[in-house]
Amino acid sequence: MLNIGLLGAGRIGITHAKAVQALPNAKIAKVFDPVDAAAENAIALTGATRATVEEIMADGDIHAVIIATPTDLHADQIELAARAGKAIFCEKPVDLDAGRVRDCLKVVEETGAVLMVGFNRRFDPSFARLRAEIDAGAIGDVEMVQITSRDPSAPPVDYIKRSGGLFRDMMIHDLDMARFLLGEEIVSVYATGAVLTDPAIKATGDVDSAAATLRTKSGRMAVITNSRRATYGYDQRIEVHGSKGLVEAGNHRTTSVTVANGSGYTAEPLMDFFMSRYADAYRIELTTFCDVVAGKTSNYPSGADGLKALILADAALESLSTGKEVLVG
Amino acid sequence: MLNIGLLGAGRIGITHAKAVQALPNAKIAKVFDPVDAAAENAIALTGATRATVEEIMADGDIHAVIIATPTDLHADQIELAARAGKAIFCEKPVDLDAGRVRDCLKVVEETGAVLMVGFNRRFDPSFARLRAEIDAGAIGDVEMVQITSRDPSAPPVDYIKRSGGLFRDMMIHDLDMARFLLGEEIVSVYATGAVLTDPAIKATGDVDSAAATLRTKSGRMAVITNSRRATYGYDQRIEVHGSKGLVEAGNHRTTSVTVANGSGYTAEPLMDFFMSRYADAYRIELTTFCDVVAGKTSNYPSGADGLKALILADAALESLSTGKEVLVG
Amino acid sequence: MLNIGLLGAGRIGITHAKAVQALPNAKIAKVFDPVDAAAENAIALTGATRATVEEIMADGDIHAVIIATPTDLHADQIELAARAGKAIFCEKPVDLDAGRVRDCLKVVEETGAVLMVGFNRRFDPSFARLRAEIDAGAIGDVEMVQITSRDPSAPPVDYIKRSGGLFRDMMIHDLDMARFLLGEEIVSVYATGAVLTDPAIKATGDVDSAAATLRTKSGRMAVITNSRRATYGYDQRIEVHGSKGLVEAGNHRTTSVTVANGSGYTAEPLMDFFMSRYADAYRIELTTFCDVVAGKTSNYPSGADGLKALILADAALESLSTGKEVLVG
Amino acid sequence: MLNIGLLGAGRIGITHAKAVQALPNAKIAKVFDPVDAAAENAIALTGATRATVEEIMADGDIHAVIIATPTDLHADQIELAARAGKAIFCEKPVDLDAGRVRDCLKVVEETGAVLMVGFNRRFDPSFARLRAEIDAGAIGDVEMVQITSRDPSAPPVDYIKRSGGLFRDMMIHDLDMARFLLGEEIVSVYATGAVLTDPAIKATGDVDSAAATLRTKSGRMAVITNSRRATYGYDQRIEVHGSKGLVEAGNHRTTSVTVANGSGYTAEPLMDFFMSRYADAYRIELTTFCDVVAGKTSNYPSGADGLKALILADAALESLSTGKEVLVG
Repeated sequence: MLNIGLLGAGRIGITHAKAVQALPNAKIAKVFDPVDAAAENAIALTGATRATVEEIMADGDIHAVIIATPTDLHADQIELAARAGKAIFCEKPVDLDAGRVRDCLKVVEETGAVLMVGFNRRFDPSFARLRAEIDAGAIGDVEMVQITSRDPSAPPVDYIKRSGGLFRDMMIHDLDMARFLLGEEIVSVYATGAVLTDPAIKATGDVDSAAATLRTKSGRMAVITNSRRATYGYDQRIEVHGSKGLVEAGNHRTTSVTVANGSGYTAEPLMDFFMSRYADAYRIELTTFCDVVAGKTSNYPSGADGLKALILADAALESLSTGKEVLVG
Repeated sequence: MLNIGLLGAGRIGITHAKAVQALPNAKIAKVFDPVDAAAENAIALTGATRATVEEIMADGDIHAVIIATPTDLHADQIELAARAGKAIFCEKPVDLDAGRVRDCLKVVEETGAVLMVGFNRRFDPSFARLRAEIDAGAIGDVEMVQITSRDPSAPPVDYIKRSGGLFRDMMIHDLDMARFLLGEEIVSVYATGAVLTDPAIKATGDVDSAAATLRTKSGRMAVITNSRRATYGYDQRIEVHGSKGLVEAGNHRTTSVTVANGSGYTAEPLMDFFMSRYADAYRIELTTFCDVVAGKTSNYPSGADGLKALILADAALESLSTGKEVLVG
Repeated sequence: MLNIGLLGAGRIGITHAKAVQALPNAKIAKVFDPVDAAAENAIALTGATRATVEEIMADGDIHAVIIATPTDLHADQIELAARAGKAIFCEKPVDLDAGRVRDCLKVVEETGAVLMVGFNRRFDPSFARLRAEIDAGAIGDVEMVQITSRDPSAPPVDYIKRSGGLFRDMMIHDLDMARFLLGEEIVSVYATGAVLTDPAIKATGDVDSAAATLRTKSGRMAVITNSRRATYGYDQRIEVHGSKGLVEAGNHRTTSVTVANGSGYTAEPLMDFFMSRYADAYRIELTTFCDVVAGKTSNYPSGADGLKALILADAALESLSTGKEVLVG
Repeated sequence: MLNIGLLGAGRIGITHAKAVQALPNAKIAKVFDPVDAAAENAIALTGATRATVEEIMADGDIHAVIIATPTDLHADQIELAARAGKAIFCEKPVDLDAGRVRDCLKVVEETGAVLMVGFNRRFDPSFARLRAEIDAGAIGDVEMVQITSRDPSAPPVDYIKRSGGLFRDMMIHDLDMARFLLGEEIVSVYATGAVLTDPAIKATGDVDSAAATLRTKSGRMAVITNSRRATYGYDQRIEVHGSKGLVEAGNHRTTSVTVANGSGYTAEPLMDFFMSRYADAYRIELTTFCDVVAGKTSNYPSGADGLKALILADAALESLSTGKEVLVG
C-alpha cells in the first residue's frame, strides 16, 4: 500500500485524492490544509488523518506527497519533500520564476527524488493517442502541430494577477503539449496577443487572446491559438501533420444527441468545465504517478518539463512585447 | 453523334436535355411537347427542332428517345419507339399497372430494343459507391440494408391521386435501391403505414408515413422508412451491413459551414430539393444511357428492374391492408 | 443512510455495488452470493457482511435489495422482498414467462412494494436526452422511432439457450426504448429474422439478425434492427422523427482521434463492451433507484414496464413464425 | 448579350469560358491564344472566333476581357484593356512586383475601368457563407481567423521558380481570405517556414511549409498554416472566432460514404484537385463578373485587393528572413 500525504485539499487536491482512493494499492494517509472545512472534507472522503506539513514530511510511512497548495508554496514544499525522501507529484507550475524553478530542481536532482509535474493533458486519452499514433509511425515525420485551446470564460481578474497571466497559466499547457508532440526541442518562439474580451484584463497588463508560433531546429512548427472566452464551450483540439498524414483529436461532448429541424442540425455545446473535460486525464495522471512511485513506468512529465514550458511561456511574453522571435534553449 | 428525340420537355425532360447537351457525342435533335412554351424552352436550350411523336419515330437519323411525358403515355411510347428501332430511356414507372408493364416489356423484348428505366439514384455517386464497396468485398456478405428516405414535403394531393401513392411514387425508388444493394432477389414484403402529416392525404386513401421490411431467400433483410415530410431537408441515407462491416452513405448539404455558440453547433439543413440533391445522379444517368446506346456498357436499370420494383410496391400495398408478409417472385 | 442488500455479486451485481458505494447516502450492507469468491469480492469492495437471502429479508435495517441473481430466481426473490417490505431493484427480465411475471407483479402490487426493473438504457445520458427533447417539444408529435442495435459479438450459445433468445435477451431493451420514446402504447408487432452470422445459433432455434416494426393506435411507428455481430463495435443509435423535426443519439467512442492519409479519414471503432458503453447509465440507474427509495422521484421503469416489454418480445417471436402482425395490448 | 474576349485559353481560361457559356446573357466572342490547339479548343467550346490581343482591344462589340495569360503579361494587358474601355477580369496576381501593380492600378483608376481580380475562393459557397454569417452578426465581433490551407502536392519546381514562391502563389489566397473575413485592415505580419517535404524546393530558395500570424489595429488576429503536401487531399478549412461564437467551414468530399469495420470508420480522402474543390467558386466568380459588368453588383475583389494581398505576401517573406513582425499599411 502506497501511503500518500496530500498538501492542499482544494478542488484540485480533492480530485487527486479521489483518483488515489479508487486505486487498490494506494491511499491518502495524511492531509494538510490550513482551512478546516477543506481538510475535513478530504478526511471524510479518504479516512486520512490531518497533519501539518512538517508531520507529513517526518512520517516515515508516507512514501509520496501530492502538492496542490498555492503556487508560491510549491518550490519550498518540493524541496522539503525531496529532502524527506518522498516521491513528489506537484501541480504546475513549480514556480512562476524560472530561476527559482532551477534552484528547486537542483535540490530534486541532488536528493534523487522523483518529481512529476501536473501536465494532466498528456494523460487525456485522446491526446495520449495522438502521441501513440505518432510513435507508431501513423503520420511519418512530424511537421506541424496546430493547437486550438479556448477556455469557456476568463478566470477572475484577481487570479490573473497572481497566475502570471495567459502565457503562464493557460498557454503553458499548450506549450508543454507542443513539446510533447513535436518530438524535438523548440528553438524559437513568436507570440502576439490582444485584449478582446474584457477591458478589466487589460488593466492587469495581460492579454486574453493570443497566438504563438514555435519552431524546432529542423524546422518543425507548432501554432497555438488561445482565448479566454468561447461561448460554445471548452474548445480543446489538436492536429499533428506529418509526412505521411494527419492525426487529430477533436472536442468532447456530454451526449451524442443532435436535434434537426428547419434551422439545421444542432449538437450540444462542448463540455465547458476543465474538470469534466479532463476527468479521465486527472484520474490517469494520478494512476501514473502511483505507477511511477512503484517503479512501473518512468515516462512522466518531469521537473525539467515544467521548467521548459515555463521558459517557453516567458519567451512568448518577451516576443509579445518586442514583436520578434525569441530564441530559446 | 448520337441524335436523341426528347418526348416531354417539362422539368425532368429539360434536366435530361441539359445532361445530353453537355456531352461531346450526343445531342437533342428533336423535341416533342404539346405545350408550346415547354417545347420552345427546350429548343432554345438545345437547338433542336420541334416534331410530333410520329415524326420522331419515323426519323431514321434519330437513334434514341428520352421519354419524359406523363406516366400514362410511357408504355405506348416505349412500344412505338421499340418498334421504330430506337434505344429508349424512360422515366419511371413504365406504367402503374404491372400487367400493362409486362405487355410492354414483351414488345421491347421482341424488338430487341434497349430500354433503360430512370432509377436515377443508382447513379448517385454516394449510392453507386456503396455498390462498388460491396462488389469490392469491403463488407463481406450483405446481411441487412437500412434505407431512410424522407421528402421535405408532400407533393400536391392531386399528384398523389394520379401517382399510385407513396409506395408507387416514392418508396419504389427505395425498393429498387434495396434490390440493387441486397444482391439477391426479394421473396417477401411486409409494410405498414399511417397518415401523420396531413389529413388531406388520408382522403386519397394513401399514407404519408411508412415502413417496409423485405427479405431474400437466404434471409438477407432490408428495412425502408419513408415520410412525406422532413422539416430538416431531404433525408436520404443508406446503410448496408455485412459479415465484415458496414458501408453507409450520409446526407448532403450545400455548404460545409457550422455556427457554434451557447446553443450548440449548428450545421445547415439538408439540401431540400431532389433536383439539387440528385443533380449529379441525373447527369451521370443520361451519360450512362448514351454509353449504353454506344455499346460501352450494359450495366443499367432495365425494364425488368422497373417491373420488379413495381411488383414490390404492389406487394407493400397489399401487406399494408392485410397485416401479413406478402410473398413475391 | 440507505442500507441495501445485494443478491448476486457477479459482474452486474458488482457494477451496481460500485454505483451505490459512490453515493453519500447509501451503502451495500449485506451480500448474498453462493460463490465464495464473488461474495468476498463484493465484501472487500463495500465493507458489507455476508448473509443468506433469508437473513437479508429478515434484517429490519435493510431497506432495499438489488437482485442480480440468475433470471430464474428473480420472481421468487422479488416476492420474498416485497413481502419483507423491501424496495426492490431487479435486473431484467422479471421472468421469461409472462404468466409468472403477472403473478409476481400481483404480489408486488398487494404489498405496495417499490419495484424498479433494470432497463438501464433509459438512464443513458444520450437516450435520456432524447426523451427530454421530446418532452420539451423539440420535435413536435412523435411519428417514427428508428433503433439500430447491434452487439459486437454473440453471447455463448449456452447463454442463448437459457436467455429466451434474441427477442427476449437483446431486442427487449429496444422494445422498452421504443415504448419509452413513442409516448403511446404499442398495439401491433411484426418481426422477421434469420441466422446470418453463426450456424450454431440456428441449432438453438434462435435468430441472430432481426427487424421489427411496431405500431401504436394513432399510427406512430417504430422500427428496430438487431444483429448479434458488428465488426466495428457496439452500434447503439436511435432516431426519433416528429412533426417538427428529428432528434437522434449517435454512437460513442473512447477517444476523439482521427487519422487521415491517402486511404481517407479513419476514426476508431465504437466502444465494444456494453459495460463501458453504458457505464454512465448503470451509475445513474442505481442513483435513481436510491432516489426512488428516498421518495425523490417516481419516474422509473416499473414491473409493468418489464411485463410490457416481455409481451412485445413474445409477440415478435410469434410474428417471426407466422409472418403476420401480432396484435398486443 | 455581353460579349467577352478571352485572353489565354489554357486550363483556367477554359474553366472561365465554360462558366460564361452557361450564362444566358454572356458569351465568349473572341479568343486569343498563341497556341493553336488551345485556341481551337476554346473556339469549339464557345463558337467564338480567333483574334489577336490588338483585334480584341479594337473591337467595339467586345465589352469585357478575361485575362488568363501568363502572369508577366497581366499588367500590360490590363492597361491595354483599361485604355480600350473594356471591363477586366484578371487572374491573380496582377504582377509579382508591387511597384508594377501600383502603376497598373493607376492606369485602371485613370480610365475608370472595372478591374476584378481572380480571388476565386471568395466565391466558394462555404467561404462566402462565413462572410455572410459574420455580416449577419452570428458571431458578434470578429476576433480571430484560423486558416488551414494545404495542397495535395507541390507544383513542379519550375513553376515555383516563376511563381514568386509559396507566399506569393499559395498563401496569397489565404492572405486575401484573412482580409476578407477580418473586417479590418492588417497592420502587421509575422511568418516562418521551412522545407520539410522536398529538398528540391530548398534549392529554389522557397519554403514548402509555413505559418503566418496577422494582426489588425484593434488586435484582431489571423493565423494561416500552409503546406505544399497533404497526403489526405486538399485541406481547406477556415474558422472565424468572434465575441458571440464561432463559424467554420470544413472540407469537401466527393461522396458521403463511410466504411466501418474492425479498423474503425473510414471516410474517403478529401477532394484533391483545386479545380474540383473550387468548381462552384469558379462558376460563381465569372457569374459575378458578368453581374459587375451589368451593374448589378459592385461587391468584388478589386485591383486594390490584389495589391494588398501581394503586399502582405511580401511582408511575410521579409518576416521569414528577419524573424520579426513586419508592419504594413
